[in-house]
This record gives sequence, C-alpha cells and structure tokens, in this order.
Amino acid sequence: MKAAVMGYGTIGSGVVEILMENRDQVAKAAGEEIEVKYILDLRDFPDSPVADRIVHDFKQIEEDEEIRLVVETMGGLNPAYPFVKACLMAGKHVATSNKALVAAYGTELLAIAREKNVNFFFEASVGGGIPIIRPLYRCLRGERIEEITGILNGTTNYILTKMEREGAAFEAVLREAQNLGYAERNPEADVEGHDTCRKIAILTAMATGRQVDFEEIYTEGITSITDTDFQYAKKMGTSIKLFGTSRMFEDGRVSAYVAPVMVGGGHPLYPVSDVFNGILVKGNMVGDTMFYGSGAGKLPTASAVVADLIEAVQNRDRNIPIGWTKEKQEIMPMEQNTFRYFLRLAGSHRNKEGDVRKAFGPVEVEELYGMDEFAVLTGPMKEGAFKAACAAYEAMEAQKGEYGIKQTIRALL
Amino acid sequence: MKAAVMGYGTIGSGVVEILMENRDQVAKAAGEEIEVKYILDLRDFPDSPVADRIVHDFKQIEEDEEIRLVVETMGGLNPAYPFVKACLMAGKHVATSNKALVAAYGTELLAIAREKNVNFFFEASVGGGIPIIRPLYRCLRGERIEEITGILNGTTNYILTKMEREGAAFEAVLREAQNLGYAERNPEADVEGHDTCRKIAILTAMATGRQVDFEEIYTEGITSITDTDFQYAKKMGTSIKLFGTSRMFEDGRVSAYVAPVMVGGGHPLYPVSDVFNGILVKGNMVGDTMFYGSGAGKLPTASAVVADLIEAVQNRDRNIPIGWTKEKQEIMPMEQNTFRYFLRLAGSHRNKEGDVRKAFGPVEVEELYGMDEFAVLTGPMKEGAFKAACAAYEAMEAQKGEYGIKQTIRALL
Repeated sequence: MKAAVMGYGTIGSGVVEILMENRDQVAKAAGEEIEVKYILDLRDFPDSPVADRIVHDFKQIEEDEEIRLVVETMGGLNPAYPFVKACLMAGKHVATSNKALVAAYGTELLAIAREKNVNFFFEASVGGGIPIIRPLYRCLRGERIEEITGILNGTTNYILTKMEREGAAFEAVLREAQNLGYAERNPEADVEGHDTCRKIAILTAMATGRQVDFEEIYTEGITSITDTDFQYAKKMGTSIKLFGTSRMFEDGRVSAYVAPVMVGGGHPLYPVSDVFNGILVKGNMVGDTMFYGSGAGKLPTASAVVADLIEAVQNRDRNIPIGWTKEKQEIMPMEQNTFRYFLRLAGSHRNKEGDVRKAFGPVEVEELYGMDEFAVLTGPMKEGAFKAACAAYEAMEAQKGEYGIKQTIRALL
Repeated sequence: MKAAVMGYGTIGSGVVEILMENRDQVAKAAGEEIEVKYILDLRDFPDSPVADRIVHDFKQIEEDEEIRLVVETMGGLNPAYPFVKACLMAGKHVATSNKALVAAYGTELLAIAREKNVNFFFEASVGGGIPIIRPLYRCLRGERIEEITGILNGTTNYILTKMEREGAAFEAVLREAQNLGYAERNPEADVEGHDTCRKIAILTAMATGRQVDFEEIYTEGITSITDTDFQYAKKMGTSIKLFGTSRMFEDGRVSAYVAPVMVGGGHPLYPVSDVFNGILVKGNMVGDTMFYGSGAGKLPTASAVVADLIEAVQNRDRNIPIGWTKEKQEIMPMEQNTFRYFLRLAGSHRNKEGDVRKAFGPVEVEELYGMDEFAVLTGPMKEGAFKAACAAYEAMEAQKGEYGIKQTIRALL
C-alpha cells in the first residue's frame, strides 16, 4: 500500500526509517508492504536516499488515488489541519503524532473519518512510543475508567529529576537541558504545562467518549518549583512531579488538571524519572494499570505512528470506532478538587503556629536547619477553601508587617 | 450476542459480574449487548442470581448455534482442552484465562481458529488485567522485539517482597501467604516457577511468531532464596525478583529462562513489588516499554477476558491474525546465557581470596558482620563457564576439607 509522509523532520524521518529498517516485520503484520511514495516538505534533501520522493505540493498527495495512507508529522495547526482534513475527505487514512492537532480538531477529524469510512489514528500524540491510546480502546473497553494520571512530558520530568538529584535550580537545569537538546529554545510549551494539557485532554476525551476542550483544563507548569522545595521533599521522602490528571466520577462529573504535585514513594508514578513517561489508568474492575516508556524521541514516537499505519492497512475498508463524539464533556472547576497542600511559610513555626492553625487547621510541620522559613502539610482541603485560607493567612501576616506564603504545591500523600 | 462461560470459579464469576456491572460500557464498546446464556459448572448455585443459567452438560453449549462466544475459565487441561477445541470447531469464538491450556495447546487451537474464521483470544492468560498480549500484536507489530522480561507471578513476588521488607524466611512468608489466600495450598506451580514458565513461553511465542515448547525453558523457582540473601541484597542496594525472560537475537537465536535474579535500583522492574506484575518489552525502535498492574485477582483477570469478548464481537466474522504458527522456535541452552553471579561462600574472604580468584576471576566482595561466610559478585560469565568454575571451587575446598558454595543467584547488575 502506498503512503505519503507529510513533514520530514525528526518524527517523519523516523517513520521512513522504521518502514525501511523493519520492512519485513511491518509487511508481515500489515499483510502487505507499506511503500512511501511521497514525502512532503518545504525543503529538499538532495543527498538523502529518499531525495526522489520529496514533493513540495500537497495537491500531489491529495489527488493521487494510489495514496491510501498519510502520515502527518509536521506539527502545529497550519497547514497540518487543512491538509489532514483534505486527506480524510479524499478517503485516505491518516496517522498523526501531532497532539496540538488532535486536541484542537480531533472531534471534527474523527467525525470525517467515520463518515468517509477511513481511520484517523493518533497513538503517537500521547506518550510517544508507549502504547496508550490503543490499550484504552482495545484492552480497557469493558472498564469504567475512573482515573488517568500521567507524567506526559519528558522535558519537564528530566528537569525535575535533575533538580531532585543534584539540588540544582530550575533555570540552571533548563539551560543544561536546552544545551543537550532535551528542551526547546522556546521551552514554554513544555515547562508551562501546555503540552501535558493537550495530552491529558486527549486521554480524557478517549476515556469519556466526549469532546474535551483543553482550554478548560487548569494548567500550571513547573517554573515556580525551586531547589528548596526539593530539599523539603527529600526530607519528607517525597518527590515533585508534573502530573496531568483526569478523574471520572461515577455521577458523571469529570475533573482534570495539569500541575506539579508532591507524591510519596508508594505512588505508582514515583519511580518514573528522567525523560521517561508513565501513565496510570485506574479502571473500576482492573484497578491500577501503568504504562511506562520513552515518551518522546524520534524512533519511539515514529514506532507508534507505524503501529497506526499497520492497523490502517489491516482495516483499509472500515472505520475502527475510536475516539469521541461532538457531545461536550464539562470539566469541574479546579476549586472543587481536593488535595493536601505543601506550603513554605516565612518566619519560624514557633511564632506562626497560631496563625497557621487558624488559617489551615491542623498541619504537619517540616523544618530545614538554618532557614528563616518552615513548611507545613495541610490535611485534605477543597482547592477553593485552600485559596480562601491562603488569603486569610496572608492578611494576618500583612497586618503584622510580616511575610507570609513563599510556596504552595498540591500534594497527593 | 449470546455467550457461555465454562467454569464458574473465581475468574468465571468475575466475567459474569463485569458483564452485568459494566453492561453499558461493554455494549457500547462491542456494538451490542453480550448476554450470558449458559454457565457450565459441575456445581449448582441455587442461591445465585444466575442459578437458572447453570448447565452441567457441555453438549448444550457446543450444540447451541446461538452461542457465538465462549469463555473458558476452568483452568487445567482436561476437560478445558477438548471443550475449547470443540467450541472452535463449531465456529464459536473462545476467550480463555488458562495459561496452561495456551502454553500446551495454543498452536493447535490458534490454527483451528484461523481455519474456522473465528478467534481464540487469551489476553488474561498472562499478566492478569495488564494489557500485554494485545499491545504485542496491535501496538508493537512494527517492532523487532529484542527482549521481554516479566515479573509474571504475583504470589512469588509477594513472598519475595515480604522477605525483603521483613527479613523473614521463605517458609514463614509462604505460610502467611497461604493463610491470606495469596498462595495455594499446593504452591508448587507458583514457587517452583512453572506458572511463570508457561507465561514467558506464551510471550516468547507471541514475539517470535513461532511455537515455543515451555518444557525447553530452563525454570528455577524461589524456594532456595533465603533471608540471608536479602541481607546481602539490602547492603548492595539490590533486590531479588523472579524473572521470566526471553531475548530474541538479531541472528534468530532465542534465549528464554525463568529464575530468581538479583537486580539493581536502576532496573525498570525493580519497583514492582507485592502481588503486582510488571512486563518490560524492548523493541528495536521503541526501546524500553513497561506494562504494570494487577497480575492476578478475580476482577482484573476477568476484565481482560471481557476485553477479548468485546474484540470477538467486533470481529465476529473474521479471524484476527494473532499468535504463532506450527514452526518451532528453538531455545538456546541455558549454558549459553551470560550473567554476573552472586555467590555466598563459606569461611572468610581473607582465607579464600586465592581460591575465589582462581575459580571465578576478579570479583566484588561483600561481607556481613559476624557471619562465617562472605559473598562475591563475579564479572559477566557464560552459565556453562560458571558451572565449571563452581565445580572447580568446590573441588579445591573439598580437598582442604572445607565447605564451599552456600548459594548462587544470577545477577543483572
């Protein structure tokens, strides 16, 4: 079967590489060979073995009826969105690694695929090479999914792991990660949590079967996490990870957020470190299941795209019912979620004990030697109530002319 | 679609429970409701809500053309094997949780299913509720699988975890596990590694696409592991886990074994403890991927059976190409595998240093306070060479009238 690859960057060239390197396995699995006929890119690659397949005009792909499979690895929304839409309209299967595209236009593209009896697959858009989209619709379909929690961004996990192990500051580790190529020159999408947000939106839509607007998901990145936070975490036997989480309650309410959280050694995602990703899925029957692996990288991500291609070839004439409908899934306001909270407070616990109890109720206290601050861990509180408690505490301290809260981190302990 | 459940024990009743409890999710996923028409068991269940569906005669299921789906959760080979074979011959899809059946007769049953254009599914036979069979044939099909290593038996993992945490002896923990219902009264299948052996045989056959004879897989259980071993392991920052492993070399050779191994904190399976299972899959493109969850238990295992039923309904009129052929996969002799080895040796290192070096070459030494023994960790050696070295060492000590080797454990460090 003839395929076109749109975007010959890291992932796209990885797809071409796997189709050549693992040609026999792929042909055996798919039932026939997958041959790359066109590679769409703005650039030429005159010295590449695929130089003769490079094209610059999308029309050539759209109008070639021999092309039944299209890989979209351009990233971004434009022209990825119009191109993918046109391919589906023309009755071609599409496999994409583009989480921005799936999060923003997945609902529409899935509907077109259904109508045209082709497939729109996106295994590579979440968790890189880790099988997660397909297990959700193939393996856990008899389950009522209760929770999905993931470490979904390798860059931020790498940064937090380095901060934890080396006691280094965020900025220093980010610079190092940029020099190593683990973080982009413009790191905002990673460190501000936007990438994780799109991924948890996709997983939540998969789990609920309904459209999820990623803009409704509370999203907080890791830029405010400091080496001091990790000093406390170490003393407490905990770690700090960037989680994307969604919880599906039995009454139909759904909560979802992206935020750094403090977790203990017993949490299944606690050992997930460096650039690895881990995704925990709780089903009402199966309990906790976890998927772990390389969440990014050329070949792991490309491998997931190739798995999509194989499934498309196996189902060339039918739409596999995956994804979600146009029905919209409301997301609960962040204020209604319950956490414990880790706070770092200025001054000494001895002097502030009364104010802390007044604002936050009974807390556990942690102190580091020789610092003009202390930390507390609250009991479980609704986020809304916690916000109000923080405001009350700040007001008490301001009245005394003293500093108040230096840091707050949600805790699942 | 009408189903029959053969065997109303733990897993079988779990399947019925999920089909009732998650009726809507199942119907939505499968495209229609799955109704349990018969439950085959020797016993009656007069007070059960399904009392009216209990039948005692297999013929009733075999001859009822309305039954398109059959669940086999009887366990064992007889009558599971003739019953499943007859169901497939009669054109019914079969989903089983029975690893003994799949390991012993999978090749023949898969061939019959292909011929009859139905499906023989066995997701629940390995890893309980953890999706692993389906990811291997759905998600990692474009990969050349290089290694599968699993902690595949919850009972032995529970026992080893308890020994590690509590410093308890094997027999004491086994008795406790039996009292808690985590271990069988006759624990041999678990603690001698037979259960793990069948599971790694199935996974190896999935990865190679060829028949694997489980009797050819070297299998060693955990009965010789002692609390003293864990004292050393703790000092060395390692743990001891029962692994089922297979490695697929690029030249086509395949190694497979079941044995307790000493692993370090960096191994992806190191954190898998208690009754949990973890399965590490290395692909030539995707790198390390790990699947983690409840490897046993009523509802997790039943959940995997239900996923099989859903896929069978979705593919009622076609055989999904999974599994392996009749072509036989040779397994390399255990002697050709390379490990490092942890040994506990009688006497003091000071006195034995020369003999140790003569037999095993340069080693790392570990000593525990106040014990008339010491431990060494060899460099990487072929198992055959290691066996010869052990014999040489024993001969040297015997000549001196002294004790020699107290324990040997393979190490992946």
